[in-house]
Amino acid sequence: MSDQFQAPFYLGIDLGGTNIKAGVVDDTGRPLSSISRPTEADRGPEVGLDNLVDAGRRAVEASGLSWDQISGVGLGSPGTMDIHQGLLLDPPNLPGWVNWPIRDKLAERLGCRAVLQNDANAAAYGEYWAGAGRSAQSMVMFTLGTGIGGGIIENGRIIEGRHSHGAELGHIIIQMENGRRCSCGQFGHLEGYASATALVKRACEALDMGERSSLQAHRDAGTLTAQTINEAAEQGDSLARRLMHETARYLAIGAVCLMHTIDPDIILFGGGMIASGPRLLEEIRAHVAQIAFPVPARHTRIDYASLGGDAGFIGAAGCARLVWGSGGGGGSR
Amino acid sequence: MSDQFQAPFYLGIDLGGTNIKAGVVDDTGRPLSSISRPTEADRGPEVGLDNLVDAGRRAVEASGLSWDQISGVGLGSPGTMDIHQGLLLDPPNLPGWVNWPIRDKLAERLGCRAVLQNDANAAAYGEYWAGAGRSAQSMVMFTLGTGIGGGIIENGRIIEGRHSHGAELGHIIIQMENGRRCSCGQFGHLEGYASATALVKRACEALDMGERSSLQAHRDAGTLTAQTINEAAEQGDSLARRLMHETARYLAIGAVCLMHTIDPDIILFGGGMIASGPRLLEEIRAHVAQIAFPVPARHTRIDYASLGGDAGFIGAAGCARLVWGSGGGGGSR
Repeated sequence: MSDQFQAPFYLGIDLGGTNIKAGVVDDTGRPLSSISRPTEADRGPEVGLDNLVDAGRRAVEASGLSWDQISGVGLGSPGTMDIHQGLLLDPPNLPGWVNWPIRDKLAERLGCRAVLQNDANAAAYGEYWAGAGRSAQSMVMFTLGTGIGGGIIENGRIIEGRHSHGAELGHIIIQMENGRRCSCGQFGHLEGYASATALVKRACEALDMGERSSLQAHRDAGTLTAQTINEAAEQGDSLARRLMHETARYLAIGAVCLMHTIDPDIILFGGGMIASGPRLLEEIRAHVAQIAFPVPARHTRIDYASLGGDAGFIGAAGCARLVWGSGGGGGSR
Repeated sequence: MSDQFQAPFYLGIDLGGTNIKAGVVDDTGRPLSSISRPTEADRGPEVGLDNLVDAGRRAVEASGLSWDQISGVGLGSPGTMDIHQGLLLDPPNLPGWVNWPIRDKLAERLGCRAVLQNDANAAAYGEYWAGAGRSAQSMVMFTLGTGIGGGIIENGRIIEGRHSHGAELGHIIIQMENGRRCSCGQFGHLEGYASATALVKRACEALDMGERSSLQAHRDAGTLTAQTINEAAEQGDSLARRLMHETARYLAIGAVCLMHTIDPDIILFGGGMIASGPRLLEEIRAHVAQIAFPVPARHTRIDYASLGGDAGFIGAAGCARLVWGSGGGGGSR
């Protein structure tokens, strides 16, 4: 291992419904290793635990470090959970992993102390520590994927909430009358308008209403996704353009709600949907400039996340560092 | 002075558009004195400063303490402001008090170090320190009056925001399509639906649409207020009942947005409108139970504030204690 990395070191693991990513991260947030493997979530929590352990061991091996050089393990997981107790409650993306004491089981199997964090909080902390939020004191991040996750870092601390429901930013209500139904079953949530799933659904509704668009061919071919909608928009398809423009407006409304609540230095958008390129970001910024209060509108930086799919395990490692390393001092990193 | 009070002591001043309230507060948040006088805001900031100084001096005199027993002054003021710089920028409720370095002017005149805080943040901190939020670790408060203010306390710290726009909770967007116009000029904000001003406006609109109600007599007599609407509701007037019920729903939506963002121990409602009694609170709770995520819905306490009009100066004193006293240690109080 090169001496360019700085001790102490932490193992970060990002548990997803489909894949597990893991890596060893140094004290400045730089990964020494990065591996990925399937979660096999449907085979239940015991197999899942085996797979987490395998991912963690392979990540440490790939780093060239020995286990006694690992100061702690951070695990990011989808909720619902009890962060404080290290417990998964009943995560929709990990069906059957109910009341599962994942933190302590993982710590025991790896022989290393561990912390649990919500995956979107961990990804936000990764960006705050080592990514696009590096210069910020306070930060809000929206993670745009199948659903919409969120993370809030205020003065170096993750706002995880007293019931582990902090920063569930996909589930703020932006349309209280006749709101769209969200994947969670409630109505009018941001996620019900601006997630990748919602974007595809809105496209289908417009096509059902008879709008003519190149998106119909994608629908017929089973290739209608957030990505193909964005590509059609870039190629000038007017329905796709409108859908992307509306998406930017919805996200701007979410951003403004957080600017008028947390008032952070920076708001980041991450997740798969930002692959759609700079136009979405520009449109979000333009909407925010119109509807936020003048002072935060002028000063709040709005940007894309920069760590991509590595934000989760890097941030999870950062959560271990918050507890056992030099990251715990409120604002230091 | 009785020895039941506990040193050190702080002077809190609550600057309003109409009145100034001030009092000396002990280390446990109990007031030794409380005085009130007109602001005379329209006579400009120099006269206003004289009046703040007068209020502060009278509050110290009434406490029986000498000035060398006062450890610091906290001033709560309506914004806009730069909290860090101690500067009023251009407060709508203090017309002409523009770019006014109120903190340092006040400190100089009183011969005592001073801190500035947003008035709604100060009131929330007062409730957190010494009122209905006393048992909480994290708290969100909505202050319901002519407008809607907000305050967020997380782990003992006020979330004042990086541009002094934290917890502007009247200005979260709850209705993005065809939203009502807010007093700030934007659309769909909570304040545009649920403030006392909005409640009266909604009543007038219903009367204009021809609804028959005892409220018409109040309107004709110029006595249509949030209070008379609530009284009519209590007496069974069906329009008034509907208006109060809708108000509870709007406030519940605001509460749920904060439960899914901050996820605090407790959400408080304070300000003049809570004089309408327990029914509004019960209706807010019932709506929250229906639309919040199950875990926070079950565990988050939703209550009225308890300090009434004293929350502002008590909390302002608490802000001085946060800086110069034992309140600064993240969570302690």
